[in-house]
Amino acid sequence: MSATLKNDIFIRALLKQPVERTPIWIMRQAGRYLPEYKEVRAQAGDFMSLCKNAELACEVTMQPLRRFDLDAAILFSDILTIPDAMGLGLYFEAGEGPKFSNPIKSAADVKALAIPDPTAELQYVMNAVSLIRKTLDGKVPLIGFSGSPWTLASYMVEGGGTKDFGKVKGMMFSDPKSMHMMLDKTAQSVSSYLNAQIEAGAQAVMIFDTWGGVLSHEKYKEFSLQYMQQIVDSLTRTADGQTVPVTLFTKNGGQWLGDMATTGCDALGVDWTTDLSTAKKLTQGKVALQGNLDPSVLYADDDTIKSEVKKVLTSYGDGPGHVFNLGHGIHQHINPERVKTLVDAVHAGLS
Amino acid sequence: MSATLKNDIFIRALLKQPVERTPIWIMRQAGRYLPEYKEVRAQAGDFMSLCKNAELACEVTMQPLRRFDLDAAILFSDILTIPDAMGLGLYFEAGEGPKFSNPIKSAADVKALAIPDPTAELQYVMNAVSLIRKTLDGKVPLIGFSGSPWTLASYMVEGGGTKDFGKVKGMMFSDPKSMHMMLDKTAQSVSSYLNAQIEAGAQAVMIFDTWGGVLSHEKYKEFSLQYMQQIVDSLTRTADGQTVPVTLFTKNGGQWLGDMATTGCDALGVDWTTDLSTAKKLTQGKVALQGNLDPSVLYADDDTIKSEVKKVLTSYGDGPGHVFNLGHGIHQHINPERVKTLVDAVHAGLS
Repeated sequence: MSATLKNDIFIRALLKQPVERTPIWIMRQAGRYLPEYKEVRAQAGDFMSLCKNAELACEVTMQPLRRFDLDAAILFSDILTIPDAMGLGLYFEAGEGPKFSNPIKSAADVKALAIPDPTAELQYVMNAVSLIRKTLDGKVPLIGFSGSPWTLASYMVEGGGTKDFGKVKGMMFSDPKSMHMMLDKTAQSVSSYLNAQIEAGAQAVMIFDTWGGVLSHEKYKEFSLQYMQQIVDSLTRTADGQTVPVTLFTKNGGQWLGDMATTGCDALGVDWTTDLSTAKKLTQGKVALQGNLDPSVLYADDDTIKSEVKKVLTSYGDGPGHVFNLGHGIHQHINPERVKTLVDAVHAGLS
Repeated sequence: MSATLKNDIFIRALLKQPVERTPIWIMRQAGRYLPEYKEVRAQAGDFMSLCKNAELACEVTMQPLRRFDLDAAILFSDILTIPDAMGLGLYFEAGEGPKFSNPIKSAADVKALAIPDPTAELQYVMNAVSLIRKTLDGKVPLIGFSGSPWTLASYMVEGGGTKDFGKVKGMMFSDPKSMHMMLDKTAQSVSSYLNAQIEAGAQAVMIFDTWGGVLSHEKYKEFSLQYMQQIVDSLTRTADGQTVPVTLFTKNGGQWLGDMATTGCDALGVDWTTDLSTAKKLTQGKVALQGNLDPSVLYADDDTIKSEVKKVLTSYGDGPGHVFNLGHGIHQHINPERVKTLVDAVHAGLS
């Protein structure tokens, strides 16, 4: 047991150490499915105002921990804080997802990109991390996070969400030199950003590669994994004498888990399209695995949720190194009662 | 050489017979990237009016064959004709994709679904097939197609496109019995629809499982593959003494190619996230493979297109059984000149 943590089974599972029961946290556990979140969000005004207010960000981070027996907290923030700090002008339109008012359109735009100082433009994130860590008071570990360079670059070039990734892939294929320059700058930014989060109190970090799965295997290695590797190599891996585990998650990246496992990270996120038994074979014990229930299972009744939880636990099988999670963020229309069923079912285990 | 076809390399490649060069066609080759398509579309009015007018559907089917040296034609139609014929009221809103005015909301709705008669409600499709086949006059083979049962069911329950598949997965998890009834009815509908297309002149058929890739492996086998299997088992496999090859394509289904290859189909579509060399290993010579260039390569310059084409050809390697295609439909903003570069590069091969 860590000197500072009352519950460290999440950290131990990520480090493949023995645990009494499988730990669980839920991607987007602080979010719109909780009525108390919606109240704070309404109070804050827009989404970024909520992210930039340390007290409110701390409050919504804590909310799911009051309802459910979760084994980790995750910083309430957005994956696009870095490009926002680079001056791209992040905003959210109702029902439309994130947008940038100044997207990257040319090689000149890429050259002009500056690496943000995490203790200046991004100080608001560090303030939230410090306050949440203090408020948690060792109850469970705090996860810090960032988007991956490829994922950030996708939004930066597309100017928002996209179905076909035409602009960012157009740049990747037509001007790979500029794309590599942007990814290198973004990787440097993510590294210093995550190190600042660790300095401020994050006890584990996760890199969300939401869009690596839209690439071919070759391009994935060249344009996404290479830059996550650069980050893994640059991160502070201990703080206060404790190891800070690093988790990589490429959505729809099941086929590349073997490559990802060689980066030196501690754990990999797995979505539900890849069985954990398959993921275990592909990664050959090099890393812990985090996942992988289909978030849509939470639309079903309690008995179905319990039986689907058992399938995931059975698929991982024996041995340490499993952190239970959904395979993607929880949907906004889920009933919080179903989440309680899920968390309790994971803690009940296969007995 | 087939008695009725001047160019049958597409058919021969699907049957893993030797070919002089790798055949190519392009998903959505008749479509919005062609200015002449846009003219006909404007003349027809809305999208479904174009599908329902045999002369205009034939005209747009023929358009790409006039520009490019393609080895197959594909019926111009939509994957959602079957649910439309079931009475769900298909319509298209500008920029929003397909919608249904009467989506499936309950077990009672599922029970009330009737299997459409392809020579009645869907006769307009057969009229188009007959006219296109006659107009082609043996130049290249004509491909007929349908959506897969799971893909059709997704649209039928969601009422249109969706990001999280909450409604259809909600039904799958909460009321699997109704979901199976809907999939069985849809599979019966697809079987009789494709057999009618073969009767009307289609020389190969393809089933597009656009959304099978959002399922777990277990659910994919139970809710998508099982019903494609049912269709493969029910199809007329010869017409006019010629074999009618059957191709299955699950987008993002790379991990399940081994399962798909055991259905008795002739070929599998492969998207660019799975290397053809990997797909070949997974399918162990049981089927031909169709794919798999990332459609976004067509945003690049001619030299990049040529080098990416060579990578795909090299990845497939020696031996018969490769049909070149994109890994998904061509994007609407592609310059047709780049498509010419692509088609000619495939025909030039690795020399």
